[in-house]
Amino acid sequence: MTFAEILTIGDEILYGQILNTNAQWLSTELTNLGVRVKHHTTVSDQEQAILDALTHAEQRADIVLITGGLGPTKDDITKKTLAKYFDSDMVMHEGWLAKLEAYFAKRGRPMVETNRLQATIPKVATLLDNRLGTAPGMWFERGGKVFVSMPGIPHEMECLMQDHVLNLLRQQFTLPFIHHKVIHTVAIGEAFLAERIAHWEDALPPHIRLAYLPHLFQVRLRLTGIGQDLAAIQQEVEAEAQKVLPLIEKHVFGFDNITLEEAIGNLLLEQGKTVATAESCTGGYVGHSFTKIAGSSRYFIGGIMAYSNEVKINQLGVKKETLAVHGAVSEETIREMAEGVRKALNTDIGVATSGIAGPDGGTAEKPIGTIWIAYADENGTHSQKLQLPFDRLRNIYFTTVLVLDLIRRRVQGIEI
Amino acid sequence: MTFAEILTIGDEILYGQILNTNAQWLSTELTNLGVRVKHHTTVSDQEQAILDALTHAEQRADIVLITGGLGPTKDDITKKTLAKYFDSDMVMHEGWLAKLEAYFAKRGRPMVETNRLQATIPKVATLLDNRLGTAPGMWFERGGKVFVSMPGIPHEMECLMQDHVLNLLRQQFTLPFIHHKVIHTVAIGEAFLAERIAHWEDALPPHIRLAYLPHLFQVRLRLTGIGQDLAAIQQEVEAEAQKVLPLIEKHVFGFDNITLEEAIGNLLLEQGKTVATAESCTGGYVGHSFTKIAGSSRYFIGGIMAYSNEVKINQLGVKKETLAVHGAVSEETIREMAEGVRKALNTDIGVATSGIAGPDGGTAEKPIGTIWIAYADENGTHSQKLQLPFDRLRNIYFTTVLVLDLIRRRVQGIEI
Repeated sequence: MTFAEILTIGDEILYGQILNTNAQWLSTELTNLGVRVKHHTTVSDQEQAILDALTHAEQRADIVLITGGLGPTKDDITKKTLAKYFDSDMVMHEGWLAKLEAYFAKRGRPMVETNRLQATIPKVATLLDNRLGTAPGMWFERGGKVFVSMPGIPHEMECLMQDHVLNLLRQQFTLPFIHHKVIHTVAIGEAFLAERIAHWEDALPPHIRLAYLPHLFQVRLRLTGIGQDLAAIQQEVEAEAQKVLPLIEKHVFGFDNITLEEAIGNLLLEQGKTVATAESCTGGYVGHSFTKIAGSSRYFIGGIMAYSNEVKINQLGVKKETLAVHGAVSEETIREMAEGVRKALNTDIGVATSGIAGPDGGTAEKPIGTIWIAYADENGTHSQKLQLPFDRLRNIYFTTVLVLDLIRRRVQGIEI
Repeated sequence: MTFAEILTIGDEILYGQILNTNAQWLSTELTNLGVRVKHHTTVSDQEQAILDALTHAEQRADIVLITGGLGPTKDDITKKTLAKYFDSDMVMHEGWLAKLEAYFAKRGRPMVETNRLQATIPKVATLLDNRLGTAPGMWFERGGKVFVSMPGIPHEMECLMQDHVLNLLRQQFTLPFIHHKVIHTVAIGEAFLAERIAHWEDALPPHIRLAYLPHLFQVRLRLTGIGQDLAAIQQEVEAEAQKVLPLIEKHVFGFDNITLEEAIGNLLLEQGKTVATAESCTGGYVGHSFTKIAGSSRYFIGGIMAYSNEVKINQLGVKKETLAVHGAVSEETIREMAEGVRKALNTDIGVATSGIAGPDGGTAEKPIGTIWIAYADENGTHSQKLQLPFDRLRNIYFTTVLVLDLIRRRVQGIEI
C-alpha cells in the first residue's frame, strides 16, 4: 500500500476565510489512483511550522502533496522553506524565466524583481509546467519518497495534477488497479436503501467496498474494487452492480458521471418531449435545474414563476374560485397550475409546485413544509403532497428534486 | 496569544467523500473569539493515528477541538482513544443514559448495547449536553490545556459549540477583544477595489487587519481589530470603515451579516416597490435569488422564464419583428422583455436577461458570454450589455448578481 499526506499551507484556511477544497479534490484523485490518504495537515505561512509539517509527513507517507504559499505576495515562503528542508540552493530556471518574460511582454506589464523570483526554484527540484499561472509546480524525491509543491489556486493545482503529477505518481509507485462504479438513486433515504440492500452488502468480497454518498434525497452508491488484475476487478464490480440493481431499480436514474438534471434531460430528449414549469414555492429553482444544463433549450420551453395569486390566475389560468375555496397550497390548485402552464406554453409536459417553504406562513392545517407538486401531460395529471421538515432553502431544493423525479417516473411509467 | 488546533477524525474526509466544512466553521468561530488557529489535522479512525495527533496537538496548542468518530457504527474509537490518551477508565454517565432511554422509548425503538455505550465517557471528562444527537460532547483539561471532543455531524457540533464550548473557552482563557466590521461591495473586482483603497489600507494600524473575501463579483472587506479595550477597538474599526467608505460607496450594498439578495429585498420593501423577472439565459435563477429570501412575496410577484422565442412573444409581448431583425440576444429584445414582464405581471419594476451562457451557441458577432440585462420602471428602461468569460453556470450566477445590482443602482439613483 502506498500512503499519502496532503499538506496545505495558508493562514486564510486557518482563519476560516476559505474552505479547504484542495484537500478534498486531492484526496479523491489519490483514492482513485489506489493511494491511501492517511493525513491532512494545514499549517500557517511560517517557516518552522512548514518544516515541522514536512518532517512529520516524511515519516508517515510515501507521497506528500503540498499546496499554497507560492504566490509572489507571500514572499515565496513555501519555496524557500522547501529549499531549506532539502538543503538545496535556489537557482534561476531559465526556461521558466523566458516564459514569464513573454507573459509580461504580451500584457505590456513591467516585470519587477518579485516576478523574476517566481522563476527561481530549489536546485534539487524538477520544475512542473503550470499552464494557468506564473508559479510553477515542483517535484522533489528523497529516499524513494516524493514531495510535490503546487500553487493553492484550485484550477492551477488541478491542472498541474492532471498534466503531470498523476502520471508521474503512476510511474513511480506500484499501485493497484481500481475500478469504480457509481449507481445514482433518488427519492429513497439512505437508511431505507441500506436496509433494502443489506444482504447483498454483507456478502460483498473484502476487496470491493461500498460507500453511501447522500445529497439532497439522492444517494450515490459507489462500488470500489481494488486488485492487481484490472479486467478481473472491472468484471467483479460490474457483476455486483448487476446483482444489486433489481433491489433498487425503480430509484436508479443513472450511472457514473451523471446528474439527475442531465438524466431527466436525456429522458426528455429520447422521448422527444418538451416541458414547462409553473413554480410558486420553488420560485424559479426547477427552471434553473433545467437551464443549468447545456442544450436544455431542446426540451425546456420556459415557465411561469407564479408567486402571487394574480399570476396564478392571469398567466396560468387557475380559477379564482379554486384559490378562494381551496387556497394556493392545495391539490386542486396544483393540478390547475400544471395543466395551465402546459397549455399556456404549449408543451407536452407541465409541472408545478406550490407550498409553504417557511420559515413563516404555516398553519395548523397546512404546517410549514406542506408542498404540493404536480405533473400534467396528454394522459392526465398526477399530483403529490409532500411534508418536508427542512429550512426554507432545503425545502426548495428537495421539492425540485422530487419534481424532477416525478417527471422521471411519469415519463418512464414507473409506479412506486 | 492563545493557540488552537483542530483535529478532524474520519476516513470519509481522507477518501475525499466529504468536504471538511467543520474545520472552516471552527476556525471562523475561534478567530472571532481572538484565538489563533495554528494547525488543522485530519487523521483516520485508527487508534495510533489519533494518539499521535493528540500528542502533537498538545505540544503545539492550548486548545484542541476534536470532531468525529463518536457514532455508534464506528465503535466509538475516538472516545476509547481519548480515555487511553488521558489514562482514564470509562464510566457510565447515568444522566446521559436516562436521556438516551427516554429518547428511544419516545420513538418506540429498542435500545441495544451499542446505544448504551454512547452513555459511557472517560472518567476524567466533563460531559457536554448535545441537544441534537445521541453522542454527548466531552471536555478534558490537562496542564492548563483544553481538549474538546464533539460529534462530526455539522449541526450537532455547531450547536454544542454555541451552547457550551465558546463560553467555556471565554472563561478559561484570557482572550483579547475582537471587533469585526464587514463592508459588502458588488460589481467591482478585487484588484480594482484594492487599487482604489491602497492608500487607506497601507495606513491601517497593525492591530487592524483587512481581508478581501471575493465571491461571484462581490467582495467583502473585513476589518478585524484586536485589542485589550473593547470600546476603543470598536471605535477605531468603525472610524476606519467611515474613512474607506467614500472611496467605494457606489459599490457598497450593506454591512456585516447581509446578503445582496436581502439588501435588494430591503430596498424594495423600503420603497414599497414590486418586481417581476423575464429570464432567458438565467432561466429562473434571478427568480430563485428573490424567492430564497423569506418574506420575498411582499415584493417579488413572479416572473416568466422565456427560454423559447414563442414564450418571449406570447407571454412577454416581444414583437416578432424585433426577434427576427435583432435576435433574442439584443438590446431591442431585452428592453421589450423587461417592459413586457412589468406590464404582464403589473409590477413597478421589470428586469430581464437574455444571452449566450455557453458552452455552445456563440457566434463571431455574439460570442459566448454575450448577455444583455435590462431594468424597466415608470421612468423608463435601462439596458446593459455584459461580456462574461466564465462557464455556463458561473455566467448565470454573475448575470444574476449584475441584475440585482442593476436594481440597486436604479432604485437608489446611483450612476457608475
